[in-house]
Amino acid sequence: MTDSANATGQTFVAACREAIGAAHVLTDAHDTAPFLTDWRRRYQGAACAVLRPATTEEVAAIVRLALEHRVALVPQGGNTGLAGGATPDASGAQALVSLARLNRVRELDAHNNTITVEAGVILAEVQARAQEAGRLFPLSLAAEGSCTIGGNLSTNAGGTGVLRYGNTRELCLGLEVVTPQGEIWNGLRGLRKDNTGYDLRDLYIGAEGTLGIITAAVMKLHPQPAARVTALAALESPHAALDFLALTQRFTGPLLTGFELMSDFCLRLVGKHFPQLRYPFGAAHGQIVLLELSDSESEEHARAIFERLMETALEDGLVADAVVAENLAQSRAFWDLREHIPLAQAEEGLNIKHDIAVPISRIGAFIDTTDAAIAQAVPGARMVTFGHLGDGNLHYNVQAPEGGDAKAFLAQHQAGINRIVYDSVHAHGGSISAEHGLGQLKIDEAAHYKSAVEVRLMQAVKAALDPAGLMNPGKVLR
Amino acid sequence: MTDSANATGQTFVAACREAIGAAHVLTDAHDTAPFLTDWRRRYQGAACAVLRPATTEEVAAIVRLALEHRVALVPQGGNTGLAGGATPDASGAQALVSLARLNRVRELDAHNNTITVEAGVILAEVQARAQEAGRLFPLSLAAEGSCTIGGNLSTNAGGTGVLRYGNTRELCLGLEVVTPQGEIWNGLRGLRKDNTGYDLRDLYIGAEGTLGIITAAVMKLHPQPAARVTALAALESPHAALDFLALTQRFTGPLLTGFELMSDFCLRLVGKHFPQLRYPFGAAHGQIVLLELSDSESEEHARAIFERLMETALEDGLVADAVVAENLAQSRAFWDLREHIPLAQAEEGLNIKHDIAVPISRIGAFIDTTDAAIAQAVPGARMVTFGHLGDGNLHYNVQAPEGGDAKAFLAQHQAGINRIVYDSVHAHGGSISAEHGLGQLKIDEAAHYKSAVEVRLMQAVKAALDPAGLMNPGKVLR
Repeated sequence: MTDSANATGQTFVAACREAIGAAHVLTDAHDTAPFLTDWRRRYQGAACAVLRPATTEEVAAIVRLALEHRVALVPQGGNTGLAGGATPDASGAQALVSLARLNRVRELDAHNNTITVEAGVILAEVQARAQEAGRLFPLSLAAEGSCTIGGNLSTNAGGTGVLRYGNTRELCLGLEVVTPQGEIWNGLRGLRKDNTGYDLRDLYIGAEGTLGIITAAVMKLHPQPAARVTALAALESPHAALDFLALTQRFTGPLLTGFELMSDFCLRLVGKHFPQLRYPFGAAHGQIVLLELSDSESEEHARAIFERLMETALEDGLVADAVVAENLAQSRAFWDLREHIPLAQAEEGLNIKHDIAVPISRIGAFIDTTDAAIAQAVPGARMVTFGHLGDGNLHYNVQAPEGGDAKAFLAQHQAGINRIVYDSVHAHGGSISAEHGLGQLKIDEAAHYKSAVEVRLMQAVKAALDPAGLMNPGKVLR
Repeated sequence: MTDSANATGQTFVAACREAIGAAHVLTDAHDTAPFLTDWRRRYQGAACAVLRPATTEEVAAIVRLALEHRVALVPQGGNTGLAGGATPDASGAQALVSLARLNRVRELDAHNNTITVEAGVILAEVQARAQEAGRLFPLSLAAEGSCTIGGNLSTNAGGTGVLRYGNTRELCLGLEVVTPQGEIWNGLRGLRKDNTGYDLRDLYIGAEGTLGIITAAVMKLHPQPAARVTALAALESPHAALDFLALTQRFTGPLLTGFELMSDFCLRLVGKHFPQLRYPFGAAHGQIVLLELSDSESEEHARAIFERLMETALEDGLVADAVVAENLAQSRAFWDLREHIPLAQAEEGLNIKHDIAVPISRIGAFIDTTDAAIAQAVPGARMVTFGHLGDGNLHYNVQAPEGGDAKAFLAQHQAGINRIVYDSVHAHGGSISAEHGLGQLKIDEAAHYKSAVEVRLMQAVKAALDPAGLMNPGKVLR
């Protein structure tokens, strides 16, 4: 940081102390450290201050000061992002704006099936408040105990409920946003229908704080299902899983809330590191699918549907074996298998992760061709393929060859394997970031695969809404 | 039109003849007339030509010529819009671009549950193609036999399936758009998850052709339900209808695809003009609700759910009477009642229409206070209130007092009644255009009720993407 940048920073920080109170402007390295490293510890940033406003008006005051002093702002929610989107650069010239103190539930409207929450409310609290009111807030993901709704919106978080309820985008009806000019846009509408102009809401959702700072939102609630029941089905290949998905959708309609694919190797890895989690079938099968129904009638009703489905699938030869959970504990155990895959991967050692999506119909072809290309490039590399098949979203991860040095494997092969995977994703009409956003991690990859027209459109929007370029610069696009 | 504008127009038209073939450039008044008046015959426009490109490349060529010659373009689909959004102004300087010849279904991907269609494909054809493939395309509205998917997208059309399947926005995964620079953005992604930058798709949807011309789209398909069953419930008030909606959602979960409110007066009007459509209950009731379930199991299953629901609602005193359709013909007859309300209104004479939305929880309060305000302002005015209660969307229409002169009533009271209704909508946190868009009809009303911040944001987006201001000027915003 230059001396003049440093002086500007100090004037700005002093003005922020005036605006939001000195206690909420952190500059001591010990206080700011937790905000300046991302959750995966890939990025280490610096900041002239960590600002902790408590209200939308305080956020707006900070943005106006930032504009006046030309200080770039990096908004942050629960700091659980996976792409470095909430970590400032290393210059120390940027300021971090933590939304954690904007943590009020402003309203729960049971008849309208909506909850109005501030950006810093923890996802698990939104779920809990909905449940108290006899409603379901279906967004659910691993970080739900610490991630915030503002972060979920800014990254358009996915998770396990997308198949039935959509991404965070589909769960949002209205927003309150502080614009890069420091004005407050009150778009907190609780409406299912509103055709009165451009869809600003969806422009801010997924923009990772580069177009303004989301301070509050009206989120949709759903009726609580009477029962959730899971089942496992064993089959030969991802191709068979696709046919089975189509059959399942015909039998279950909108009751299907989960359709997760796990390769045989995923479950063997889980069994190796968590021996209490046993392989769920007597014989080995190429792929296992976990299905979940959310039923508005009863557990018995859901189980009856599953039994009819499995009977047909077994008769048709689509499925080799199947088991329907007999109680809540067994349902939980099936999900445990799925949720322990990333943990087993971590135990097995460093690995290369990809969060990709392709059209559902192309998943089989994508896995076949990409597996083959990786096997050729890096003989022995072990594929850990699992994910939300019903959404076309795979966690397509690569583990070092058995017994190999994982660190050396990463150093030598990460770039090459990423290129193989992303080229294949692109060739199959897919996305290189299905759930996690771009942040700073995938900014160049995204620019590489997007058309020049699309990049220009994004740049035009950015320049129009944030002409000073102070909103989370260096994220999403350059 | 000035002479120089006329000369420019002639040069542009000649260049268009070169670009897309003289046969597809209409200038004869007899040929252009059908394109230049809107469906409701409220607006009469003029155009230097009606252009009928057949491909995306031809649309792009037209846009580049328009930019070169500074000719404004008005895109048009099936010309069934209700807000004049597809009608040019009266100057004769604008050119109309009909997308009707871009009418190919490019791909149907049953495993991905998507259909890729060009902008000019008729909605009913999309429905039919989905059905042939054993899928459902759930967008359904009165004009479906002649409206196009491009128009549906540009106005974010609603219709009768929104409660379960969402507006057109929620049914679209990807777009192809010709930008105001005459470039083609290929955003035809068939992905459920894609977090790689700004949501351009949703920016174009609902923009009514003011940011570019949508030329093709990837639309979502759903499993076909095994059965659709309807029921009618009689109750006292809109307030009771809200409690009944919450109960219904608990019993039916995602199977509920219709929850339509009709006031007693609506059904009396239907009975007056269509005597074969009889009042469905022995006694009169304040409000009638039409419910529809789309069941993935069977008709019997749907009927059983309805019977359990109605039993509880009758026991709780929420509902005074109820009838579940016993067969397809009776289901059809119930919908006939609902669909004949606008027709009965037309028979009864000219009236004032409003397509509004409020949060579902406020519907009762909105109707109470607005009815009272209108009764005070125009004694004897008859309220024809019906609509998609489950979406918070009412057709809140006002008929002249019994026996009065409808034309004189409109001349004297339309402006005043509109102000009462829209002020009340605004006070209840609602939208003055739920389904129909702004077009030219509601452009000033929208500007009146929107905040200055929101108007500036919309203007910034418009100026950034269409700096020459040639894309459907005078629509959505000034």
